[in-house]
Amino acid sequence: MITVLAGGVGAARLLAGIVQVVPPAEVTAVVNTGDDVVMHGLHISPDLDTVTYTLAGADNPETGWGLAGETWQAMGSLGRYGGETWFNLGDVDLGTHLYRTGNLAAGVGLAEITAGISSGWGLEPTLLPMTEDRVATMMTLADGSGGGSDEVGFQEYFVRLRHAVPVSSVRFAGAESSLPGPGVLDAIGGADVVVVAPSNPIVSIGPLLAVPGIADAIRARRDRTVAVSPIIAGAALKGPADRLMRELGHEASVVGVARIYRDIASCLVIDSADADLAGAVETEGMACVVTDTVMSSPEVAAELARTVLGAAS
Amino acid sequence: MITVLAGGVGAARLLAGIVQVVPPAEVTAVVNTGDDVVMHGLHISPDLDTVTYTLAGADNPETGWGLAGETWQAMGSLGRYGGETWFNLGDVDLGTHLYRTGNLAAGVGLAEITAGISSGWGLEPTLLPMTEDRVATMMTLADGSGGGSDEVGFQEYFVRLRHAVPVSSVRFAGAESSLPGPGVLDAIGGADVVVVAPSNPIVSIGPLLAVPGIADAIRARRDRTVAVSPIIAGAALKGPADRLMRELGHEASVVGVARIYRDIASCLVIDSADADLAGAVETEGMACVVTDTVMSSPEVAAELARTVLGAAS
Repeated sequence: MITVLAGGVGAARLLAGIVQVVPPAEVTAVVNTGDDVVMHGLHISPDLDTVTYTLAGADNPETGWGLAGETWQAMGSLGRYGGETWFNLGDVDLGTHLYRTGNLAAGVGLAEITAGISSGWGLEPTLLPMTEDRVATMMTLADGSGGGSDEVGFQEYFVRLRHAVPVSSVRFAGAESSLPGPGVLDAIGGADVVVVAPSNPIVSIGPLLAVPGIADAIRARRDRTVAVSPIIAGAALKGPADRLMRELGHEASVVGVARIYRDIASCLVIDSADADLAGAVETEGMACVVTDTVMSSPEVAAELARTVLGAAS
Repeated sequence: MITVLAGGVGAARLLAGIVQVVPPAEVTAVVNTGDDVVMHGLHISPDLDTVTYTLAGADNPETGWGLAGETWQAMGSLGRYGGETWFNLGDVDLGTHLYRTGNLAAGVGLAEITAGISSGWGLEPTLLPMTEDRVATMMTLADGSGGGSDEVGFQEYFVRLRHAVPVSSVRFAGAESSLPGPGVLDAIGGADVVVVAPSNPIVSIGPLLAVPGIADAIRARRDRTVAVSPIIAGAALKGPADRLMRELGHEASVVGVARIYRDIASCLVIDSADADLAGAVETEGMACVVTDTVMSSPEVAAELARTVLGAAS
């Protein structure tokens, strides 16, 4: 059994690699819900959806979010009224949010809803929300850059502000009183390998570790936990991980990633571009494996998955 | 100034006629919200939307609801998950519900939201929700026909059960404590003519009259109020008005309509098919005008509008 701590795009690609090299039904993803957002009354779980759509082969590889062949009729209509359209919701994608929102309103838990969505796409891996409670990743913007409001929700930072503003702190509102989602602790405790996906350590993996009980469960499996660095040659492939790490006092390098993960993972997989830093990673107390981590094709993703799972043996 | 008490399709067609014969900016519609429904977390106002789309020339004349050229991607997606799809929501239509729901959640009133939607379509008439409070038309089904639940919301009766089940009573939950929407009483009190559209007297006009203050305001203008019968030759053109009238103890005829409206309107416009009942209508204490009321074309609708407005003079 393989359990993957997952954010969005990077995690989804690694998961797509993993299900090529182990039986998909033996794979569980524990997915970040800290960047879930209610827009226009709909409950949107961007990371869960990115993982779902990617595993279904229905993702849009050009954007890194949403569905291939998506249409945008509803957004066009919303725009006609001057509604807020900065968070793009495709028509097919909307069906997912309608299903989730209606069921939440009817008292169904997010884990069961997520299973329903996953089943709708015929997925074999198990997708688990990190929690069924409301945890909201909140970003405090450095002086004035928020245009009045100091603290904004993750999607406002990430999408509306295009993560082009400096951040002075991050918190996970509600995390302290949240419970791990159904099946999460068992999936970690019972896994042969726990993988920390190459997701943003601050705002994708950070929320998972902030849910009481999850970090402890992983720490107890530290010898079977392998992290994949999302930082390659000092930069994130996509998104603001490198800037966020710097802004929050971390080194934006595989060594900085090692310092964040060394308590929960015994091994860090880094890209060949960072081969010269393998020794520095080991100095932080982690084994280090060097390989190609840029998942530019399903073949590379499968090869990376093989290396990651092998690194735990 | 012309004020029209409006349900859905029949009212929308008459309004489309009225704006051909008087300056559109002088027309106000007070629209039923008793069949509003929250589906999948979205606030849907079917009658407001039917009137809006029809006045915008964007309605689907074949279905009598929704938009011409609509697409159904979101519903297809919802169906993939086994979600409830009996209430069809087109993709463009969804944009309207997203706008309404998001703004309601932000504390904007339904009247202002309705004005925003109307403005998005460039409409000149004023559309007013009958109330900004939650009034829900609830139908008690005759023995057993509900499959367990005796009372269902209007849309469950109308759409899911295709109004093919007998009803033993109707109530407007919340009406007793509701207030007329902003502008409603002024629109009635200040109108040169008040028109009761050819909508279902029980479940379209009934909710308006159940909002405290509205019936009194119309009664005070009885001499300037003209109703158009939705019953033609004992039947409704569309929908369950005739059956509902019978089930609730009314006569399903223009005479039955006259008995419902005689306290608030001084004149009833009936179809030529019912010419032989004009005297019986007058016996109920209303003036009676006989004309073609089947709005099969914009020309007929305009001619009917001219007759209705003339009947008040």
